[in-house]
Amino acid sequence: MKTKEIAKLVKGDLNGDAELEISRVASLKESKEGDISFLESSKSDEDLAAVRASCLLVFEDFVNTSKSTIISVKNPKLAFARIAAILHPRKTRGSEVHSSAVIAHNSTLASDVFIGAFCCVGENTSIGSGSQLRAGAQLGDDVAIGENCILHPNVFVEDGSVIGNNVVLHSGAVIGSDGFGFVRGENGYVKFPQIGRVVIEDNVEIGANSCVDRGSLGETRIGEGTKIDNLVQVAHNVQIGKRVVIASQTGISGSVVIEDDCIIGGQVGFGDHSTVKSGAIIGSKAGILPGKIVREGVWWGVPVQPLDEYKRQNAHVKALPRLRKQVKDIAKILSELKEK
Amino acid sequence: MKTKEIAKLVKGDLNGDAELEISRVASLKESKEGDISFLESSKSDEDLAAVRASCLLVFEDFVNTSKSTIISVKNPKLAFARIAAILHPRKTRGSEVHSSAVIAHNSTLASDVFIGAFCCVGENTSIGSGSQLRAGAQLGDDVAIGENCILHPNVFVEDGSVIGNNVVLHSGAVIGSDGFGFVRGENGYVKFPQIGRVVIEDNVEIGANSCVDRGSLGETRIGEGTKIDNLVQVAHNVQIGKRVVIASQTGISGSVVIEDDCIIGGQVGFGDHSTVKSGAIIGSKAGILPGKIVREGVWWGVPVQPLDEYKRQNAHVKALPRLRKQVKDIAKILSELKEK
Amino acid sequence: MKTKEIAKLVKGDLNGDAELEISRVASLKESKEGDISFLESSKSDEDLAAVRASCLLVFEDFVNTSKSTIISVKNPKLAFARIAAILHPRKTRGSEVHSSAVIAHNSTLASDVFIGAFCCVGENTSIGSGSQLRAGAQLGDDVAIGENCILHPNVFVEDGSVIGNNVVLHSGAVIGSDGFGFVRGENGYVKFPQIGRVVIEDNVEIGANSCVDRGSLGETRIGEGTKIDNLVQVAHNVQIGKRVVIASQTGISGSVVIEDDCIIGGQVGFGDHSTVKSGAIIGSKAGILPGKIVREGVWWGVPVQPLDEYKRQNAHVKALPRLRKQVKDIAKILSELKEK
Repeated sequence: MKTKEIAKLVKGDLNGDAELEISRVASLKESKEGDISFLESSKSDEDLAAVRASCLLVFEDFVNTSKSTIISVKNPKLAFARIAAILHPRKTRGSEVHSSAVIAHNSTLASDVFIGAFCCVGENTSIGSGSQLRAGAQLGDDVAIGENCILHPNVFVEDGSVIGNNVVLHSGAVIGSDGFGFVRGENGYVKFPQIGRVVIEDNVEIGANSCVDRGSLGETRIGEGTKIDNLVQVAHNVQIGKRVVIASQTGISGSVVIEDDCIIGGQVGFGDHSTVKSGAIIGSKAGILPGKIVREGVWWGVPVQPLDEYKRQNAHVKALPRLRKQVKDIAKILSELKEK
Repeated sequence: MKTKEIAKLVKGDLNGDAELEISRVASLKESKEGDISFLESSKSDEDLAAVRASCLLVFEDFVNTSKSTIISVKNPKLAFARIAAILHPRKTRGSEVHSSAVIAHNSTLASDVFIGAFCCVGENTSIGSGSQLRAGAQLGDDVAIGENCILHPNVFVEDGSVIGNNVVLHSGAVIGSDGFGFVRGENGYVKFPQIGRVVIEDNVEIGANSCVDRGSLGETRIGEGTKIDNLVQVAHNVQIGKRVVIASQTGISGSVVIEDDCIIGGQVGFGDHSTVKSGAIIGSKAGILPGKIVREGVWWGVPVQPLDEYKRQNAHVKALPRLRKQVKDIAKILSELKEK
Repeated sequence: MKTKEIAKLVKGDLNGDAELEISRVASLKESKEGDISFLESSKSDEDLAAVRASCLLVFEDFVNTSKSTIISVKNPKLAFARIAAILHPRKTRGSEVHSSAVIAHNSTLASDVFIGAFCCVGENTSIGSGSQLRAGAQLGDDVAIGENCILHPNVFVEDGSVIGNNVVLHSGAVIGSDGFGFVRGENGYVKFPQIGRVVIEDNVEIGANSCVDRGSLGETRIGEGTKIDNLVQVAHNVQIGKRVVIASQTGISGSVVIEDDCIIGGQVGFGDHSTVKSGAIIGSKAGILPGKIVREGVWWGVPVQPLDEYKRQNAHVKALPRLRKQVKDIAKILSELKEK
C-alpha cells in the first residue's frame, strides 16, 4: 500500500512522500523501514528521532519538525487499526471439509466453509458462507452459525445456540453449557431445568476459555459488536447489550442485564438480577450486589459505588491515623480543662 | 403428562382441570398453552392475568382467584424442577462407540455406553453402564467412570481419577491435572511430586472449563451431590464434602477442607489449609486467609468475617465523613473554651 | 533405591539402616513401609510414632529419638521433591505419531517425539527431541516446540509461538490467542491488530485452562523457570521474568512487566502497564492499578500497599467503633463543660 492510498483510506492529511510503499504495521519502538506506526498523543516529535517507521499516523494538531512522512487524522490509533486490518488480513482458509470431520447428514454447510480436522457438526446445524471451524471445534445439534465466523480450535457450541455473522470464538470457549441452577430438596440438590439457548449477535468476539451458559428457560443473549475477553463467565439468562466491552475473568451471574455501550473491567463480579444501565463504566475487581441497578457513570469497589465516592471514602480511611491522633489530643486537652 | 399425573407426582393439591395435557415447562413470562410454570412467592394472582401457562405450581397458601389450573405444593420451584426432569429428559445417546474413538484394548466399557467421535479411553480404564463421552472427551489410564455419567465435549480426565455415578462434567473441565506445588532450590523451582489422584463421588456436577487438580501425594475429593459452577479452581488435596454448592470463578487452594452443605459464592478465594465447617455460607468475592477456620453462619469480605460484623464495619466506614466533621467541631469548641 | 543412595543424592547425613529399599514417596500420614517421607519443621519426633515410612528426610537440627532411619538435610522438602522425581518419573511415551494425527508435510519432528491421537501440527512447525503432544493437542503454523516438552490433552498453541525446552502446558491451556485490544470507532469497536507472538522460555509450566495471549504487535514473554497455575490470564505484551510463581486465577493485563523471582498469589489483578520489581511478593486478591510500580517487599490489598501499612490500616478500621465511642464521650463532657 502506498502512503497516498493509506491517507485516502483513513481520510487523513498526508505530509511527505506520497509514493512510499508500506507493508507492515508496527509499534513505534519496533518499527523498521516500510512500516507504518502511530502516536498515542500529540507530543512533540523530538523523541521520534529513533523511530524508523516510514510513515506515522498522528493527531491533527501534531507539529512535524522531522523529515518523516506523516498522515494526520482525528484518531491515529483507530486509523492504524483500520490499516492493520488491510495489511494483515485474518488468515483465510480455503473451502475445505477435512476428511476426519464428522458432519451430520442433515446439516447445511455453505459451499465455501472451512471445517478443520476433528470437528463435529451436529444434526440440523447450519454454517454460513465464509465461516471457519478450526481443528477440534465442536457444534451440537440445531446450531446456527452465520457468515464469516471463525471458531478457533476446541471451541464447543451446545445444541440450539444461534451465532450471528462475523463472530469470533477463541480457543476453548464454551457456548451454551448448562446454567448453574439447582433447587434444594430433602436429599440434596435437584437440577433446575437448563433447556434455554444462547443467542450471539453479529460482530461479537469471545475470548479463550470463556463460558456462556444457555438460558435456563429463556435465552442468554450477547448483543451486536460486544467484545468479551478470556476466562469470562456469562451465566444463564444474562442479557448483554450492543458494543459492550468486558475484560478478562469477570463473572456475570444469572439474569444480569448489561445495557449498550458499557465498559466492564477485569475480575468484576455481578450478583444475579443486577442491571447496568447504558454507558456505565465499571472498574476492575468491582462487586455488584444482587438486584442492584448501576446507572451511567464510573463505578468502583465492593460493593460498587461512584468512583468519586470511592476515592473520598478511601481518603477518609487513609486519614484514620491522623483522626485518631486528633481525638487523642482533644481528650488530653479536655481532661486538663476538666481538672482546672 | 396430564395435570392429575403431575399433581400426584409432586404430591400436590390439584385445583382445576385434571385432564389438561402438559408438554413443556416455561417461565411465567414466556409460557404458552400446554406449559406448566411456577410462582416464586405467594403473591396474589392479580398479576397473573397475562400468564398463558395451562397450569401453575403455587405455594400452599396461595389464593387462587383466576381460572388457571393450579397445583399447590410446599416448594413450587422444586416441584417444577422435578417435572422438568421428566418433560425434558437429558438427551440420551444410544449405545455407540464412534469409529474414530481410540479405545485401549484392556479398557472395560459397559455394553450401553456412548463414546463420541475423537474420544480417547486409556489403559485399564473402565466406563459404567449408561455413561456418555461426547466428542473429544479424553480419559487417561486407570480411570474409573461410574454409571450414567455424562462427559461433555473436550473434557479431560487424567490418569488414576475415580468418578462415581451420575456425574456430569461440562465441556472443557479438566480433572486430575498436576497440582501447583514447587520447592525453591538454588537455581529455581523444583516440582513437588504431583502423583495423587482425584475422587469424585456420585451426583456431582462440575462446570465448563473448571479444574480439579490431583492430590500431590494423597487425593483430592469432591463429595456426593456437590455442584460446582464454571471456571472454578480446586487445587491439590482439597476435600469438599457432600451437597456443597460453589459458584463460578471461586478458587480453592491446596488442602482446603469444605464440609457438607456449605454454600460458596462466586469469585471467593480460599487460602491453603483453611477449613469451612458444615453449613457455612460464604458470600461472593470473600477471601479466607490460609489456615483460617470458618464456622457455621454467613460470612463476607476480605478477610472473611461474619456478615453482621462486615455490615457494621461498612457502616462505620461510610460514617467517617460525619465523624471527622464531629471531631473538627469539637476541636473548635475546645479551642474557644481554652481561650476563655 | 537404597537409603544410602538417597543420602548421597541429596547430600544428606544418613542415620540408621543404609540398605533399606525405598520405592515410593508419601506424606507422613499416608506413608507405609518402603516409603520415604519428610518433615516440614524440626519439631520433636514424639508425634512420629504412628509414621510408618521406612525413611524420613529431616532438618539438620532434628533430634532423633525413635528408631526410624533418617536422612538429615538442609531442606527436607526440596530433597523429597528431588527423590520423588527419580522414584516417580514423568510418564514417558515412546516415539510414536498416532495414525489419526494431522501433520503438515513441511513440519519438522524430531525422531523420538510422541504425537497422540487427534493432534494437529501446522505448516513450518517444529517439535524437538523427546517432546510429547497428548491427544487433541493442536499446534498452529510456524510454531517451534523445544525438547522434552509435554503438551497435555487439548492444549492449543497458536501460529508463530516459540516454546523452549522442558516446558509443560497443562490440559486446555491456550497459548497465543488474540489479545483483547479494540479501538472505539463511530459504529462500534475496531479490532486493534493482534499479530505479535508468544515466547515461552525453558522450564516453564503453565496450568490447565490458562491463557497466554500473543503480543498485539511485539511479543508476550514468559521467562525461564516461571511457574503459572490454572486459569491464569496473561494478556498481550506481558513480560514475565525468570522464576516467577503465579497462583491460580490471577489476571495480568496488557503490557504488564513482572521481573525475576516474584511470587504472585491467586486472584490478583494487574492493571495494564504496571510493573512489579524483582523479588516482590503480592498477596492473593491484591489489585494493582494501571501504570503502578510495585517495589520489592510484601504487598497486599486493593489498591495494593505494603503489607505492614495494610495491616495498620485494617487495625484502624477495626478500631472505628471504639473511636466513635470516644468522640461521643468527648462531645458529652464538652457540652457539660460548656454549660458550666
